[in-house]
Amino acid sequence: MTSSLTSDRIAEALGALRRATPRIHCITNAVAQSFTANVLLALGAVPSMTIAPEEVAGFASSADALLINLGTLDETRRLAIPIALRAAQEAKRPIVLDPVFVNRSEIRCTFARDLLQERPTLLRANRDEMAALFPSREPFDALAESGAILAMTGAEDVVGERGRTLRLGNGHPLLARVTATGCAGGAVMAAFLAVETDPVIAAAMGVSVFNIAGEIAAEQAAGPGSLVPALLDALYLLDGQEISKRLNIIEQREGRHA
Amino acid sequence: MTSSLTSDRIAEALGALRRATPRIHCITNAVAQSFTANVLLALGAVPSMTIAPEEVAGFASSADALLINLGTLDETRRLAIPIALRAAQEAKRPIVLDPVFVNRSEIRCTFARDLLQERPTLLRANRDEMAALFPSREPFDALAESGAILAMTGAEDVVGERGRTLRLGNGHPLLARVTATGCAGGAVMAAFLAVETDPVIAAAMGVSVFNIAGEIAAEQAAGPGSLVPALLDALYLLDGQEISKRLNIIEQREGRHA
Amino acid sequence: MTSSLTSDRIAEALGALRRATPRIHCITNAVAQSFTANVLLALGAVPSMTIAPEEVAGFASSADALLINLGTLDETRRLAIPIALRAAQEAKRPIVLDPVFVNRSEIRCTFARDLLQERPTLLRANRDEMAALFPSREPFDALAESGAILAMTGAEDVVGERGRTLRLGNGHPLLARVTATGCAGGAVMAAFLAVETDPVIAAAMGVSVFNIAGEIAAEQAAGPGSLVPALLDALYLLDGQEISKRLNIIEQREGRHA
Repeated sequence: MTSSLTSDRIAEALGALRRATPRIHCITNAVAQSFTANVLLALGAVPSMTIAPEEVAGFASSADALLINLGTLDETRRLAIPIALRAAQEAKRPIVLDPVFVNRSEIRCTFARDLLQERPTLLRANRDEMAALFPSREPFDALAESGAILAMTGAEDVVGERGRTLRLGNGHPLLARVTATGCAGGAVMAAFLAVETDPVIAAAMGVSVFNIAGEIAAEQAAGPGSLVPALLDALYLLDGQEISKRLNIIEQREGRHA
Repeated sequence: MTSSLTSDRIAEALGALRRATPRIHCITNAVAQSFTANVLLALGAVPSMTIAPEEVAGFASSADALLINLGTLDETRRLAIPIALRAAQEAKRPIVLDPVFVNRSEIRCTFARDLLQERPTLLRANRDEMAALFPSREPFDALAESGAILAMTGAEDVVGERGRTLRLGNGHPLLARVTATGCAGGAVMAAFLAVETDPVIAAAMGVSVFNIAGEIAAEQAAGPGSLVPALLDALYLLDGQEISKRLNIIEQREGRHA
Repeated sequence: MTSSLTSDRIAEALGALRRATPRIHCITNAVAQSFTANVLLALGAVPSMTIAPEEVAGFASSADALLINLGTLDETRRLAIPIALRAAQEAKRPIVLDPVFVNRSEIRCTFARDLLQERPTLLRANRDEMAALFPSREPFDALAESGAILAMTGAEDVVGERGRTLRLGNGHPLLARVTATGCAGGAVMAAFLAVETDPVIAAAMGVSVFNIAGEIAAEQAAGPGSLVPALLDALYLLDGQEISKRLNIIEQREGRHA
């Protein structure tokens, strides 16, 4: 039972997160920085966001988790990311890697493959990005070598590792009409990795909490503009009752595939 | 008649834009990035925003239009912009150039004049910026050499080329109390250039759609804070009826001047 | 009486600010840029935000005040900041220095100490940052040498210089759940320094106006998401009656300490 996801377990972890106020260091793209910081603050975590190569090791090793997002991958970020990743790795911090748009840039794709060698805890990617990273391989098999678990986002989200997956059904199409919702979702997973030791469960918690808040917000919003404040409010106000009412686990698979 | 602007024609183009979901690559300033991305998403387009010189050619040539905005013109942007402009030019993509604050920085002004040699489709500028770019010349005459059309923004917007201009009257003063509304308006013009082949009409559509959404939002907003979500919602919800009700074309001039 | 803070005096300065529309040049962190610009616009000031070393001297010397914020201190900012500071100093513009997170980064701390030698008008810092800058010294004594006045932020804000301090009690805990509220507060102080010649009074005005707007917004908001538009609206709508009703000066000390 300890390895399965329930709404009670999510609510407990959310409470623990709010008490612990973990600091999540985010090397994320320029478009997502402000929204990601506000998502983490609304959730109950604390963001730090510097990307300066000279400073990032200290910020990453003293943080409770690290998010690396490859959007707007400029020279400063390209220098800072491996430094931060190794600092977090040495300090045994959980690490989320979000290889944004590797399917559009060969440079990013090569860079992301190199980062996977450094064994991040979690890879967050959509199907196009996975196909670019691992052409003609089954995603969970491909990742087994690196030891990372996978959160594959889409209309339905699949979280897990080879032989153990959760299919999650929360979310709302209006989230795709706001920039950086996916990027901020990766930061929420990092925040749950800071308080929940089972990384598959932590990732599933992050996906579910963000998407449930998105559902609540979409019901209140007239469009993508009013969705943003409503989403941050929903993350701030989210409680066990709402999680229990809305959590949509399509399938939870514990056994080995094949 | 095909060369004149009507509310029906705007509504049709907006429908085409929403179906085509053109990707607009934006090299824009750090202050405007997030808001511009959200404006494009609310409108129905897709933003991509990287400014890395190594990656920007691929992003620009595969996009449906390119926006170049000279705000916060740092070294990375200064390197990336000519690369992106040429890549988009070779791929025959429409290009919007927004020479923000060239009247405050000689470096930018020289840089913007060089970019005009590369023949962008549209120059979006206010009167002070035009005066800095072309001292003591009539704006439409000055631009005729470069082949670019002009969207000159102000209390009243003037869009066109030598001998063919539209004066447009939509908008609201509260828009000037929100950062990057002008910059985001340039992105909306780029989005219409991706679906409408007559660049004068496309620019006028972009100006009108953004400003009509601004009027709707200003009527609902208590101030510049609530204007932002209302503006994004208005862009998302905008329909032909609202466009028809509000479109304010002060003058549409088809003949040659002089 | 001219050296003391009253709600009437704040209301008059706010009126003067709105009439003068001072331009505040902000070299601030990537997370805070957009929100800071919107706070200044809502207040009635005009932001300029470039951080390019090649351009920043002209922008800073022609501005009415300069804000230097050390968050996300990358190489471009590290180069631009001393240039901007000296340009503003030569042009006799007021300068606010906000040494964000100097307690987390030795590089920043050294950099901030060097900047203090250049005699900014105002240092905005919390207790942890002051302790990092001046270990085992009383904050107001430590600053006396540099000639800067201090705005020390916290649950209660203390503004002043050795022998002359104001303790200010406005504000709301929800402000801490939104990123960059502190950074934007520094920009508001810079805006009041542009219209009020007594820097202690100007800083106290900035602190009070921002925090009063925060209180109004927090009463209307459901959470940190809806706080942001409400805060900007409150800054835009703030009037003398509201300031008079809410201003909370805990103590105003004119005499010399000890």
